[in-house]
Amino acid sequence: MVKLVILRHGESQANRDGVFTGWSDVPLTERGIAQAHQAGRAIKQTGLQFDHLHTSMLKRAIMTANIVLAEADQLYIPVTKSWRLNERHYGALRGKKKAAVKAKVGEKQFKLWRRSYHTVPPLLDKPDQDRRYEPLGVTEPKGESLEMAYDRLMPYWQDQIAPRLLDGHNQLVVAHGSTLRALIKYIDRISDSDIDHLEVPNGIPIVYDFDGQLNVQHKKTLD
Amino acid sequence: MVKLVILRHGESQANRDGVFTGWSDVPLTERGIAQAHQAGRAIKQTGLQFDHLHTSMLKRAIMTANIVLAEADQLYIPVTKSWRLNERHYGALRGKKKAAVKAKVGEKQFKLWRRSYHTVPPLLDKPDQDRRYEPLGVTEPKGESLEMAYDRLMPYWQDQIAPRLLDGHNQLVVAHGSTLRALIKYIDRISDSDIDHLEVPNGIPIVYDFDGQLNVQHKKTLD
Repeated sequence: MVKLVILRHGESQANRDGVFTGWSDVPLTERGIAQAHQAGRAIKQTGLQFDHLHTSMLKRAIMTANIVLAEADQLYIPVTKSWRLNERHYGALRGKKKAAVKAKVGEKQFKLWRRSYHTVPPLLDKPDQDRRYEPLGVTEPKGESLEMAYDRLMPYWQDQIAPRLLDGHNQLVVAHGSTLRALIKYIDRISDSDIDHLEVPNGIPIVYDFDGQLNVQHKKTLD
Repeated sequence: MVKLVILRHGESQANRDGVFTGWSDVPLTERGIAQAHQAGRAIKQTGLQFDHLHTSMLKRAIMTANIVLAEADQLYIPVTKSWRLNERHYGALRGKKKAAVKAKVGEKQFKLWRRSYHTVPPLLDKPDQDRRYEPLGVTEPKGESLEMAYDRLMPYWQDQIAPRLLDGHNQLVVAHGSTLRALIKYIDRISDSDIDHLEVPNGIPIVYDFDGQLNVQHKKTLD
C-alpha cells in the first residue's frame, strides 16, 4: 500500500491576522513553526519513509516542509517546489482584512468568494510580477476561483505525483488551504457543491493509503 | 559576470568533537546554526540572487543550505541534493577521534590521511548501507582519497553546475571541507601537492565571478 501525506503549512502571519493572502509570500508565526515541528514529530512516530516531497514556491509551505523533514530525519529526500501548488490567487482581495471585506460586501458574497468552487474573486487590473516565476514562463494570475486553482494543480498531480504513487513511492505534499481542498476534492471525489464545507487545518498531516489503481483504501489524520 | 558561491556547512557535532566524519550524518551544533544564519545574512547583503542551489545528501549541509536560503529570502529556488557533493568518505577512520588516531599512527601518517591528495584512508571491510543511496544505485565507498572524491565530484560539475553557469545562472553550492577543496582545486587550478595547504572554513561564503568561458575573474570571501 503506497502512502500520500498531505499537510497544510503552519499558521502564517496572514492566518493569524485574518488577511486574504494567496500568492503573497508571508512567513510563519511562532505558533506556525511549532505546528510544523509537531507535524514532523507525528510523522516520525508513524515510521513513514518518503521518497519525494512536493511543495509550493511560497515560504510558509517551504519552511513547514523543511522543519517537517528535519524532525522526521529525512532531509536528504528530493524536494520539488512548484507554482502549481501555490495557494489559490485571491486577486484584488489579497492583503485585505477578511473582517473588513465581510463588513463591506456582506456574509453571502464573502462566503461565495471564500468557499464556493466556481466564484472568481475581484481581479487585479494587472498581474503582480515576481522574479521567481519569470524563468518558468509563468504569468501570475489576476485572481483565481477554486476551480481555476484546481485546473492548474491537476497537471502536477498527473505528471509528478500520480506516476510516483504508481511506482510505489511514498510522498509528502506540503501546500495551502485551497490547493489542498482542490487535491482532496479530486482524491475523495467530492462534488463541486460539497467542497464548500471542507476546511483543511494548519499543520495536521492527513495520510492516504492507495491501492495499485490509486483508489483510497484508508485515510486518517495525525492529530 | 556569472557568480558561483561556495559554502562549507556550519560547525557540526563532529567538527566540535574532533571526530572523523565523512558520510556519517551528524547535525550542526548551535554554533554551526549561528554560522549558517550569519552566512545567509552576508549573502543577503550582497544582493545576490541565485537560480539554483546544490548541496549534498547530508543534513549538516542541507540544514545550512535551508538556513541560508531563509535568511537570503530565496527559499523558492530549486535545490538539488547529490551524493556526489557528500564529504569525502573517511573509511575506517569515520567515527574515530582525530587526536586518538594521531597519537596512534603519528603526525606524518595522520597528515597524509587528512591532507594529501592521493592517500587512501584505511578502508572499511564492507560498505555501510543507508536507504537514501539505494534508489540511486549508489554503493557507499569503503573509503576515499581526496582524489577519489574529486573524481566522483567532477561529473556533477560538468553536468549540473558548469552548464548553468554558461547559461548565466548564479548558483550556490553548500557542501563539505573535502569536496569543496576538490572543487577549489579544479576551479583555481591548484596542483596535487599544493592542495595539502588549503583549508575551507565552516560557514564563510566564497564568491567566484566567471567570464563566459568560465575563467575566474574575481574571488572574494564574505567574512
